[in-house]
Amino acid sequence: MATLKDVANKVGVSITTVSRVLNNRGAISQKTKNKVFKAMKELNYFPNEMARSLSNKNSHLIGLIVPYIGHPFFGMLTDAIEEACYLQEYKLLLCTSNGHPGREKELFYMLRANNVAGVLVCSRIEDAEEYFDTDFPIVSIERTIENVPSVSCDNYKGGVFAARELMDSGCKHPLLFGNRTREHLPAYLRYKGFCEECEKAGVDYKKYYIEPEDLFGKVLPQNIESLFRDYPNTDGIFATSDVLAARVINILGENSAYPQNMKVVGFDGIDISEYCNISTVKQPIREMGDLATHVLTKRINGVLVPERSILPVTFVRRKSSGPKKD
Amino acid sequence: MATLKDVANKVGVSITTVSRVLNNRGAISQKTKNKVFKAMKELNYFPNEMARSLSNKNSHLIGLIVPYIGHPFFGMLTDAIEEACYLQEYKLLLCTSNGHPGREKELFYMLRANNVAGVLVCSRIEDAEEYFDTDFPIVSIERTIENVPSVSCDNYKGGVFAARELMDSGCKHPLLFGNRTREHLPAYLRYKGFCEECEKAGVDYKKYYIEPEDLFGKVLPQNIESLFRDYPNTDGIFATSDVLAARVINILGENSAYPQNMKVVGFDGIDISEYCNISTVKQPIREMGDLATHVLTKRINGVLVPERSILPVTFVRRKSSGPKKD
Repeated sequence: MATLKDVANKVGVSITTVSRVLNNRGAISQKTKNKVFKAMKELNYFPNEMARSLSNKNSHLIGLIVPYIGHPFFGMLTDAIEEACYLQEYKLLLCTSNGHPGREKELFYMLRANNVAGVLVCSRIEDAEEYFDTDFPIVSIERTIENVPSVSCDNYKGGVFAARELMDSGCKHPLLFGNRTREHLPAYLRYKGFCEECEKAGVDYKKYYIEPEDLFGKVLPQNIESLFRDYPNTDGIFATSDVLAARVINILGENSAYPQNMKVVGFDGIDISEYCNISTVKQPIREMGDLATHVLTKRINGVLVPERSILPVTFVRRKSSGPKKD
Repeated sequence: MATLKDVANKVGVSITTVSRVLNNRGAISQKTKNKVFKAMKELNYFPNEMARSLSNKNSHLIGLIVPYIGHPFFGMLTDAIEEACYLQEYKLLLCTSNGHPGREKELFYMLRANNVAGVLVCSRIEDAEEYFDTDFPIVSIERTIENVPSVSCDNYKGGVFAARELMDSGCKHPLLFGNRTREHLPAYLRYKGFCEECEKAGVDYKKYYIEPEDLFGKVLPQNIESLFRDYPNTDGIFATSDVLAARVINILGENSAYPQNMKVVGFDGIDISEYCNISTVKQPIREMGDLATHVLTKRINGVLVPERSILPVTFVRRKSSGPKKD
């Protein structure tokens, strides 16, 4: 059986160089890497990284649990996390919980049993007690969990921005349209910021909640119908995600019985907001993923990290909330 | 140090049950699982799955290499693959190559060194020789690679559908607008189907290529400008992805100097096509991910699998190609 030394001899480099290529550490030219890979293939040498990681405290594996990877927010977030892992020589083990707390718990234990060095989680477990009081490195993205460092955006400010935009556009009866949320979910502060800003301005606002599963389902047109039956004066909608905003605009456009100049503001700042010309509160998604990865790797290496990191949001004005009324 | 037996005793179940929970095999109720997890936590028992997998031929790890996870096509595909892995008791190690052949090669060797049982790849390596003639289980998604089983959709038929739709909508000067492609990339057959269908009908069609990086960049408005300078008669555009179609429609809508009734057909059938009302050729993305995972796990288990699996595409007519002209 071929050894590391055989590969090094074949290429004409040192064992250290081959080892660095294998572990993706140190600056090695692509040319040398290709030579090493070629020699490995020819000698059929595929060292078992796992065997090695057993004698190594840090497995250089990071687990990531997200509810859905098909949602553009989580896609972009995962992309940024994967990139940050790659640059720091970690590998990513991706799991999706489909939003089920039970499945999320299972995945967390599976990841630990697979010797990951740490876990990044967008948790949907209400009490999140799985993650409490543990010396194991965890970073929570988007929500706070007791004793766990978290990275999120300024959701409260985002809600304030949405309320201001609708009021500045002349809306007298703005409405918050979003998933039913609870205090532990990221949307909670978003809603709070919106409501408190409307209250501060003395504006009569309403709230209409849908169930999380309605977003992807066929129920949304019925929700919109009942929304306008209950609140016929509605003249502006804060849809609490861009995907929801895009669907609302699409449904309103298909039925001329609905008001055709509805002001709509979304949340997230994903590509779809640009393509569908939606005014939105932009989260720094890539920066959140990058920062969360860095906080985690610091924790893995025993460095003290912030308990909470809150990144700023920005407002992007587009066609859906129309020109600003002065 | 706690053992498997301690956990079993604490919960009052057999060692086999605890082992099944750990390995996510067999039908165990969520209630029992939670009890086992709780006991593990209390006893601080986290068995090293890696140590076990060394004595096990099948690591139950699958590697996935995609060019970009932030693109909705790959997001949806990855989502389906992760789900299929979960249901078959495999775990997924996700890597993105950012479209760089050199990085893709590195990732492939890293995955092998990490003892994955098999690899799913959406390759961007032109010759793809890394994957030739190997006994190691690989499944290629979207493109064919010599001696490697592949799963794709009927790209040629998709191109035919797009050409027919534009011609049926009355276009006399349809134009193919997409990334410069080569024979080894999935778009190649898409283009071929479009061109040959136009030729068959004797219609004067044009092609306008952009560089892959233009799609996400700021260059696209300039591309569109030069497109209409070169081919002012253009009355229908086949944008070879939905994301590209959405961007084209957005750019045309923002400048009244451009024709405002341009027929546009996209490709992929991702959510954005629905929200932006884009007629499109729909790929069965989830089914492709699911099938690819099953082909790979069959190969891992030594079952003979099809060399090529081609899933059908469908055409979805929406506003962007307007009502059909009879």
